[in-house]
Amino acid sequence: MARRRVGLWLVGGYGGVATTITLGLATMARGLNDRTGLVTELLDFRGLPLPEPGDFVVGGHDIRRTSFEASAREFRENSGVFEPSWLEACRDELAAASARVRPAPRLGLSRAVARLADWPDAPECRTAREAVDLIAADLAAFAESESVDHLIVLNVASTEPPFSLDATHERWKSLEPRLGDPGAVALPSSSLYALAAIEAGHTYINFTPSLGASIPALLERAGSTGSLLAGKDGKTGETLMKTVLAPMFAHRNLRVQSWVGHNIFGNRDGVVLDDPTSKSSKVETKDRVVAQILGYKPSSLVTIEYIPDMGDWKTAWDHIHFQGFLGTKMTLQFTWQGCDSLLAAPLAIDLARLADVEKRRGARGPMPHLACFFKSPEGVEENDFFKQFDALLAHCRHIKES
Amino acid sequence: MARRRVGLWLVGGYGGVATTITLGLATMARGLNDRTGLVTELLDFRGLPLPEPGDFVVGGHDIRRTSFEASAREFRENSGVFEPSWLEACRDELAAASARVRPAPRLGLSRAVARLADWPDAPECRTAREAVDLIAADLAAFAESESVDHLIVLNVASTEPPFSLDATHERWKSLEPRLGDPGAVALPSSSLYALAAIEAGHTYINFTPSLGASIPALLERAGSTGSLLAGKDGKTGETLMKTVLAPMFAHRNLRVQSWVGHNIFGNRDGVVLDDPTSKSSKVETKDRVVAQILGYKPSSLVTIEYIPDMGDWKTAWDHIHFQGFLGTKMTLQFTWQGCDSLLAAPLAIDLARLADVEKRRGARGPMPHLACFFKSPEGVEENDFFKQFDALLAHCRHIKES
Amino acid sequence: MARRRVGLWLVGGYGGVATTITLGLATMARGLNDRTGLVTELLDFRGLPLPEPGDFVVGGHDIRRTSFEASAREFRENSGVFEPSWLEACRDELAAASARVRPAPRLGLSRAVARLADWPDAPECRTAREAVDLIAADLAAFAESESVDHLIVLNVASTEPPFSLDATHERWKSLEPRLGDPGAVALPSSSLYALAAIEAGHTYINFTPSLGASIPALLERAGSTGSLLAGKDGKTGETLMKTVLAPMFAHRNLRVQSWVGHNIFGNRDGVVLDDPTSKSSKVETKDRVVAQILGYKPSSLVTIEYIPDMGDWKTAWDHIHFQGFLGTKMTLQFTWQGCDSLLAAPLAIDLARLADVEKRRGARGPMPHLACFFKSPEGVEENDFFKQFDALLAHCRHIKES
Amino acid sequence: MARRRVGLWLVGGYGGVATTITLGLATMARGLNDRTGLVTELLDFRGLPLPEPGDFVVGGHDIRRTSFEASAREFRENSGVFEPSWLEACRDELAAASARVRPAPRLGLSRAVARLADWPDAPECRTAREAVDLIAADLAAFAESESVDHLIVLNVASTEPPFSLDATHERWKSLEPRLGDPGAVALPSSSLYALAAIEAGHTYINFTPSLGASIPALLERAGSTGSLLAGKDGKTGETLMKTVLAPMFAHRNLRVQSWVGHNIFGNRDGVVLDDPTSKSSKVETKDRVVAQILGYKPSSLVTIEYIPDMGDWKTAWDHIHFQGFLGTKMTLQFTWQGCDSLLAAPLAIDLARLADVEKRRGARGPMPHLACFFKSPEGVEENDFFKQFDALLAHCRHIKES
Ligand SMILES: NC(=O)c1ccc[n+]([C@@H]2O[C@H](COP(=O)([O-])OP(=O)(O)OC[C@H]3O[C@@H](n4cnc5c(N)ncnc54)[C@H](O)[C@@H]3O)[C@@H](O)[C@H]2O)c1
Ligand SMILES: NC(=O)c1ccc[n+]([C@@H]2O[C@H](COP(=O)([O-])OP(=O)(O)OC[C@H]3O[C@@H](n4cnc5c(N)ncnc54)[C@H](O)[C@@H]3O)[C@@H](O)[C@H]2O)c1
Ligand SMILES: NC(=O)c1ccc[n+]([C@@H]2O[C@H](COP(=O)([O-])OP(=O)(O)OC[C@H]3O[C@@H](n4cnc5c(N)ncnc54)[C@H](O)[C@@H]3O)[C@@H](O)[C@H]2O)c1
Ligand SMILES: NC(=O)c1ccc[n+]([C@@H]2O[C@H](COP(=O)([O-])OP(=O)(O)OC[C@H]3O[C@@H](n4cnc5c(N)ncnc54)[C@H](O)[C@@H]3O)[C@@H](O)[C@H]2O)c1
Ligand code: NA
Ligand code: NA
Repeated sequence: MARRRVGLWLVGGYGGVATTITLGLATMARGLNDRTGLVTELLDFRGLPLPEPGDFVVGGHDIRRTSFEASAREFRENSGVFEPSWLEACRDELAAASARVRPAPRLGLSRAVARLADWPDAPECRTAREAVDLIAADLAAFAESESVDHLIVLNVASTEPPFSLDATHERWKSLEPRLGDPGAVALPSSSLYALAAIEAGHTYINFTPSLGASIPALLERAGSTGSLLAGKDGKTGETLMKTVLAPMFAHRNLRVQSWVGHNIFGNRDGVVLDDPTSKSSKVETKDRVVAQILGYKPSSLVTIEYIPDMGDWKTAWDHIHFQGFLGTKMTLQFTWQGCDSLLAAPLAIDLARLADVEKRRGARGPMPHLACFFKSPEGVEENDFFKQFDALLAHCRHIKES
Repeated sequence: MARRRVGLWLVGGYGGVATTITLGLATMARGLNDRTGLVTELLDFRGLPLPEPGDFVVGGHDIRRTSFEASAREFRENSGVFEPSWLEACRDELAAASARVRPAPRLGLSRAVARLADWPDAPECRTAREAVDLIAADLAAFAESESVDHLIVLNVASTEPPFSLDATHERWKSLEPRLGDPGAVALPSSSLYALAAIEAGHTYINFTPSLGASIPALLERAGSTGSLLAGKDGKTGETLMKTVLAPMFAHRNLRVQSWVGHNIFGNRDGVVLDDPTSKSSKVETKDRVVAQILGYKPSSLVTIEYIPDMGDWKTAWDHIHFQGFLGTKMTLQFTWQGCDSLLAAPLAIDLARLADVEKRRGARGPMPHLACFFKSPEGVEENDFFKQFDALLAHCRHIKES
Repeated sequence: MARRRVGLWLVGGYGGVATTITLGLATMARGLNDRTGLVTELLDFRGLPLPEPGDFVVGGHDIRRTSFEASAREFRENSGVFEPSWLEACRDELAAASARVRPAPRLGLSRAVARLADWPDAPECRTAREAVDLIAADLAAFAESESVDHLIVLNVASTEPPFSLDATHERWKSLEPRLGDPGAVALPSSSLYALAAIEAGHTYINFTPSLGASIPALLERAGSTGSLLAGKDGKTGETLMKTVLAPMFAHRNLRVQSWVGHNIFGNRDGVVLDDPTSKSSKVETKDRVVAQILGYKPSSLVTIEYIPDMGDWKTAWDHIHFQGFLGTKMTLQFTWQGCDSLLAAPLAIDLARLADVEKRRGARGPMPHLACFFKSPEGVEENDFFKQFDALLAHCRHIKES
Repeated sequence: MARRRVGLWLVGGYGGVATTITLGLATMARGLNDRTGLVTELLDFRGLPLPEPGDFVVGGHDIRRTSFEASAREFRENSGVFEPSWLEACRDELAAASARVRPAPRLGLSRAVARLADWPDAPECRTAREAVDLIAADLAAFAESESVDHLIVLNVASTEPPFSLDATHERWKSLEPRLGDPGAVALPSSSLYALAAIEAGHTYINFTPSLGASIPALLERAGSTGSLLAGKDGKTGETLMKTVLAPMFAHRNLRVQSWVGHNIFGNRDGVVLDDPTSKSSKVETKDRVVAQILGYKPSSLVTIEYIPDMGDWKTAWDHIHFQGFLGTKMTLQFTWQGCDSLLAAPLAIDLARLADVEKRRGARGPMPHLACFFKSPEGVEENDFFKQFDALLAHCRHIKES
């Protein structure tokens, strides 16, 4: 029997996360690296029909013209990761993948993102509908030429600023006519990709805080095409810590008075977030989880600041001030020094693997059991990491038993 | 119907934890303080027949002659906690409780602890049996004069050094004859109290890393008297953090390479732990949990050092070095600044309340559902805090449903 | 010979720093506290004719109606400092000092500060000249009734937002006529006090980042009256650390790439700074010192955020990323947990003592030898703390030798 | 005129510090790296006749058989430093230097160090005198074949345990006869090298806490040969910080109550220090500086622990508990994450350069002006880093002016 081919289409293909995914899949396929960081390699996931690294074929869209090799080299220089020997060993895979990255339409870009766009061949388009169709054509060509069994569109593009929805976004029938309207920006860029994926019944996973598929009209549309959906915003560092520590305070009945978190980092995502409008999307998702878990809202503060020399090393300092017995004030502080894309990439691969398991068993629609991977799990109220993880395990047990 | 009277007998009655328990019960009974820090006040525990602060009557043993008032004042000066106004408001309760603290027999004390003993009236005794009987007589007199419905002996005395068990400790019938032997030290001090409690069918809870009831012959004896048992070593600070964070690394498949923890503090418990033999008991229980949760043993180091000016403020710095995807090395550090006795006392009260619930429903023997309160839960392999907490909740649901 | 009487007039008399100064002088005079924290108590300052705590008589202006006793109590509750027994012992001194605090004119207040003003008796005034004269009258009455030998006006009032100077502020003769103009706000509040002090030849010390006397026209005026001047912005915590650590990096030729500092605190000064316009004054002075010392400008970031439950405990986290030999990137992080007013008050007393030494020797004008006490030392380029301290010692040696 | 040739003889030639020196000199000579980290490149040192990187010729002794290339590669793998491209570019220099490293005699090694020795060609010797002569012969051959103008013997070998001196070490005439005695270990290994250097009038610099030349009899001997001497123990990380921060507390009259420092690292130096006897030398020098600077001894604790996965990344956590005004207790914590050899190597090069300046001007004997480079500056009481640095600058000014 032929091996399964899973297409992984990276929106933001030459970014840090996307490059790490692509290089990571290649080095794992060659046995140059072990599987540390992949949740799906834990014992609990044994017995699921998970695709192997070599089963994935990578393509994508980007607004910048470069290559995986150049992007990996740049990353190495700024952040001190990736062995030069890996780049050499995987030169062919990287080149082949670069050939499958297409220039992205520039509609619906924020100002901060538009400043990055430098690919001269970017296709012209005047309406959302035109952009969606251009994207859809690229997806179709990729699926066809690579004979993929399942196509997953993964959003790892730069974070967009918040986008205001209005009444027309509530229903597909009110949104659809607006898509052809050349004047209005009916959808942000991330949602154009989501819609293209949904209309073709592909799987759509949003690893970013951007809007993506999180629009009633798009969810309605997905209902009819059966696309698998997951999002949003990968839970990698400080927020992961928050959803791990807040339950501890809750279960010990220690009253959190304030939770202050300061994040600094220096990658391209930081350049974009440095624009105040983009940042607010991110801060919002990072700040809400604590109050949800505790059941009350302590004083809180979250900053994310761009400090160029930090490269991909996202460093967070959190200061948690809490009251214990007899009103005694105590403090917990932590410093998290994580390399962001190296934390994100394996989770994105996990999501793709678990989505493929769903696809094979004929599931459709949102995948709430994947909540533990996201800062803002769509349609899931629970932010306690351990409860989310238990839900994932329960789901997997259920699959294995059925 | 008459109100329930729960006797709480504090071994180490004038220590930091014991004093905080006693003052805390008094201020809560007077409504001077809220219930922050008491796990049993969480919504999940509603509906259980939990004794109220005013339902407890406190007594105890100590080797030092002082009073709750003096002990609280000293604590305040060294550690900056306890409002002077509370001491004033609760003067009567504190004085009454002090009158119920009895001089402890000095048999089986370690050298470091013996140095503290200054109560001239300490009863003479030459054998373990004599000491047990003296303790038992004090317990009986207390139970009688205070008409308690349930007597709980809680060990919050100074930590003992490790004690070597031999074959005679395996069975009650081989241990019993040795108790009358004046030459051999058949049991450490903590186990004398445990045995006195067990023989009278009282509940015994060991909040310290000392041996207490954790001896096969004593457990066998408890089997026949039906004593409720729980232990050992309250999980308050750094170890709590370990059993919260280690599961996060495990579930994300991040490989912990080393976990280094340095603890400094300056209370009397620290004076005793500063003696190398006592310290080893403590370090051992603090170090094991991480390996159990991860399923492999990273490099590790735990120190606990006595720094007088720190008072009760146990400050821990933990440095966790871990490997993520593609072998990338990352770091998490935390600093925990907790006031030790204020963290310990509410948990000890929780244990007493939950033990009383068991007593009322006629339960007997070990209480493994209380594992989440202990660094070394007796008879329980699981150290993951959240799994332990889930087990507690399941047990309470079961009680409420039955 | 009669004892010297030094008048210490506190602008912002009921604030945290002012209250700590007043209570501290009283407890030291009574021998309840030692002199820790007073620089002028170091051996190096022996032999200078320094006034003793009991030689000071305190008065002041505030916009809020309260008392030193109430203010100290509030401080105690929010920040856990000050022994209740001190308040009792010094009740009389505090009451007497409260009687010498006068309602402040409300002219030239920022919006954030104006929100605090609640003293009904605040004197009416329409022009800067009227306000200056009102202040001057209060100063004169105080000096007279207390028979002070030397009057020091110390600004410890809330921080003002930056104030734009124009050409008329360059010369006294162009500024003076504007003072009577009811329409324009010719000077911020801090400068009104400065001018009142200067015109009467009193000493003026600015412990805040507000403008105060730092205006060419006022300095010109001081030139003719001979007022002693010092400022501005007491160097107590994070900035002190910066001016201590930056020289280390410089002397080791380690290249600082970024210096990020996040400050959180919850006192009233924080309430005012929480207003973005006030904050910018503070951030500016905190950020400049590093570049001055290093001789180049690393990436930098300074935040100061108001977190109510922190009280006076200013907690700073600084992350310094530097390059060593062969481009190797390394990191220093520190956390400073200081009680702000307790750090500030002794320095303010030091300044007053050292100013009195100058007064006695007939000095006039700016006191650049006091640079080590200030974040933005007026007229001094040097920010290296040790060079500043050396300059102070040299000055004192010079005095002693002459 | 011919270029000056400075011979740099590295005792411990294949260690981390030595390898970094050798590679660093080579890459700087080729212009592949800038001079960051070299103190002697600061403006203050302009005008001194400093040798350039290309003026040094490296040789050495080691007990392990390897090569600079292998050592650099190993270092890279464990600690993530050194670009592969540098190793390639400097292949020839590294190979040439490796050819100049000689097998070390194994006399006087501690047990922990002896375990590392694996060079089969190690010369046999039974007495200290024989060992000294063997070393001297290697030095002479090197000086001759490389035509060096000045030979500097730099000790960067593994730390030795403390060595007890007795009366015979007081005078050269009592020590000398013992050197030929085959029974007694008259000197530790480090002192054998020191003596060989001294007898030939070469310069001797001790970058380690080992004894080296710090023996009265050897100093006496150096007095007659005129050797330049400096030591001991390079001040690179935590101790540097201590000698920078302690003066701040002193100058602000803040009373340090306790200073706790925990160091972890995982390089070969750590393997050796993990042996308790070796460690005590190091802890001793790290602990003393604070008390000297403050003028009183706070509680203190220093640990250095070997954690293999940390590689050369020495991470220190320091917790400083201090009392401010009115007895208020405050805290400063810092975490230093430095790559040890990369901090040490440039200082060692600075020392060699500054020693060569002295040599050219005909100086002889100890060089106390180099104190700022050492944890335990020989013959210098002052540990305040800034005072030490001022002394160095004064010395250099003096040279330039004369
Ligand atoms: N730990 C993490 O790294 C992490 C965690 C959670 C979420 N995320 C999110 O993942 C995303 C990617 O992060 P990154 O570090 O790789 O950022 P990056 O800036 O390195 O990569 C983003 C890429 O997207 C491209 N791009 C931007 N807009 C595009 C568009 N409209 N169409 C096509 N390409 C576009 C950019 O050119 C760039 O190559 C960000 O939104 C980030 O917030 C990252
Ligand atoms: N967070 C915590 O505080 C915490 C957590 C877990 C465990 N513990 C354990 O709780 C115990 C008490 O801690 P603490 O801070 O109150 O210590 P403490 O030193 O203040 O109090 C111990 C008291 O026990 C008394 N004592 C010692 N040996 C005795 C004996 N054989 N019989 C009777 N009295 C005796 C001492 O005189 C002292 O009053 C310690 O063993 C400690 O390790 C504390
Ligand atoms: N470590 C430190 O505490 C520190 C260090 C440097 C500078 N400072 C500065 O010292 C000042 C005082 O700090 P604080 O913590 O005592 O603040 P605070 O808010 O407790 O006290 C300020 C007082 O000034 C009064 N006030 C405000 N405007 C006034 C005006 N125009 N006239 C008269 N009174 C006025 C307020 O009512 C208040 O009582 C602030 O500007 C602060 O930035 C403090
Ligand atoms: N920041 C720093 O790295 C720093 C700071 C101060 C002092 N030091 C000291 O510098 C020394 C070197 O540190 P390192 O990290 O390079 O250690 P290392 O273990 O990497 O190198 C030491 C080398 O010395 C060799 N050696 C040991 N004993 C010898 C002997 N008797 N004769 C000849 N060779 C011998 C070993 O084989 C090894 O190659 C240590 O003593 C260390 O304490 C280092
Ligand atoms: Na305790
Ligand atoms: Na303040």
